[in-house]
Amino acid sequence: MEELQKVTFSQRLRTVQSKKGSLLCVGLDADLQKLPSGFKRTPSGALSFLRSIIESTYDLVCAYKPNLAFFESMGPEGLAVLKDTLTFIPQNIITIGDAKRGDIGNTAEHYASSLFDDLGFDAVTVNPYMGKDSVLPFLGRPGKGAFLLALTSNPGSADFQRRKVGPRPLYEVVVRTSKGWDERGSLGYVVGATHPAQLRRLRALAPQAPFLIPGVGSQGGDLESSVRFGCTKHHDLAVINVGRSVLYASRGKDFALAARNEAQKVWNGIESARTESPRIGRAPRR
Amino acid sequence: MEELQKVTFSQRLRTVQSKKGSLLCVGLDADLQKLPSGFKRTPSGALSFLRSIIESTYDLVCAYKPNLAFFESMGPEGLAVLKDTLTFIPQNIITIGDAKRGDIGNTAEHYASSLFDDLGFDAVTVNPYMGKDSVLPFLGRPGKGAFLLALTSNPGSADFQRRKVGPRPLYEVVVRTSKGWDERGSLGYVVGATHPAQLRRLRALAPQAPFLIPGVGSQGGDLESSVRFGCTKHHDLAVINVGRSVLYASRGKDFALAARNEAQKVWNGIESARTESPRIGRAPRR
Repeated sequence: MEELQKVTFSQRLRTVQSKKGSLLCVGLDADLQKLPSGFKRTPSGALSFLRSIIESTYDLVCAYKPNLAFFESMGPEGLAVLKDTLTFIPQNIITIGDAKRGDIGNTAEHYASSLFDDLGFDAVTVNPYMGKDSVLPFLGRPGKGAFLLALTSNPGSADFQRRKVGPRPLYEVVVRTSKGWDERGSLGYVVGATHPAQLRRLRALAPQAPFLIPGVGSQGGDLESSVRFGCTKHHDLAVINVGRSVLYASRGKDFALAARNEAQKVWNGIESARTESPRIGRAPRR
Repeated sequence: MEELQKVTFSQRLRTVQSKKGSLLCVGLDADLQKLPSGFKRTPSGALSFLRSIIESTYDLVCAYKPNLAFFESMGPEGLAVLKDTLTFIPQNIITIGDAKRGDIGNTAEHYASSLFDDLGFDAVTVNPYMGKDSVLPFLGRPGKGAFLLALTSNPGSADFQRRKVGPRPLYEVVVRTSKGWDERGSLGYVVGATHPAQLRRLRALAPQAPFLIPGVGSQGGDLESSVRFGCTKHHDLAVINVGRSVLYASRGKDFALAARNEAQKVWNGIESARTESPRIGRAPRR
């Protein structure tokens, strides 16, 4: 634990990805309406479900990413379910609190405290719209990280993120501007798998930053490009997230095996892209 | 209650502001470290404090705006404190959940459900960065509203919001683009009191929308301009928020009276600006 206090989030992610031989992240978005048969559509049903998902996939992942919306919508018990879910995640796996918070400085401090100190997440997602003072409270904590939304995977990313600010799209301005805010390797970016060309460009702009890449799976993002363009030259630092396609691979009694098979399939796809990628240019790990 | 189902948020706000004779909103940001002497620095201490603040100001306000960060950072009990706080607010006052959420469509549905259905807020604040599909789940609910962040009151608003997208600043593009998303009078905007000229311009662009105007008080925004430029031509629909300057007007035993006096002072300032404003052009209500 003492060692963790000295390393940056970026170093820590690198170590976890290397030791576990995985870039895969599973999004833990427990939707009560989608739980497999046999689970009660209650907070405790969701907890049992997430425990099974973790037990059947933990050896394949470098990270889990619970999205807070799904827990908050369970009402008062949701937060307890989230906390309990986090206790099922082995220590050597990164936990990312997908909260997309963003507020003025003194308020953002409270969000950071809630997510890092109370809930204990290793990393969080943060919305850049309110600028530097809204982002700084999430940076500079030893071993902890923040993924700033740059270019998201949803259709709405066209509304503002892709608008041109001078010669450059806004998401690129977000990355260029925010790069200078991080002095301790704690800043990463969210870049959707649905935008491979832009991912490549952003990786060139931020060659050392961790990238959280959602949108593979249900949203139709391209896995091979995500790995090829998302990885850095010498380390990985691309975290490939899959959510619904793994969690709800089957609604039947075989849901855990189906989830594992789906996760394994994505893991295989990632490894295959890593092996073949001329940018990474090295032998596979196994 | 049945009547509420038929009116838009905008109509409802108009009615409340008119009946209560107030545009004032008090932000309920219970910071445990700032509670007056005599209150325990615990969630239940915060609840007692907020109850006193509400009891000493409710006749002066049209709305209360709890910021979720302050409750979330209290840990598991924070949500219960928030729910209990809401029960102390009289029915004829608008409650605004300042959560600044924003996520892809299916996730945003869960945030909307949590804030509107579980917590029961009348309105919420929403971050525009992820675009239309992230905002739509907050719109179109009968009697409920969403204030989209346009130009915020903090220094970080210069980093992205004020950048030029073509000939216009981003915050203006946000208002122009999002106007078309609202078909049922449920969309409003957050415009900081620290930007009076821009507030005037945005009011011209969105002449019918509710505006939530923070930044008066501790942040130094201009009250008179906020009222003059924030109000619509025929109705008010400007909600002037004050937070810390009222809540922490005194740390002593006279905190409740001091809070009321500070709220009264802002109320007086608002009424004075309304009376003098040539744009509003009508007699004061009392």
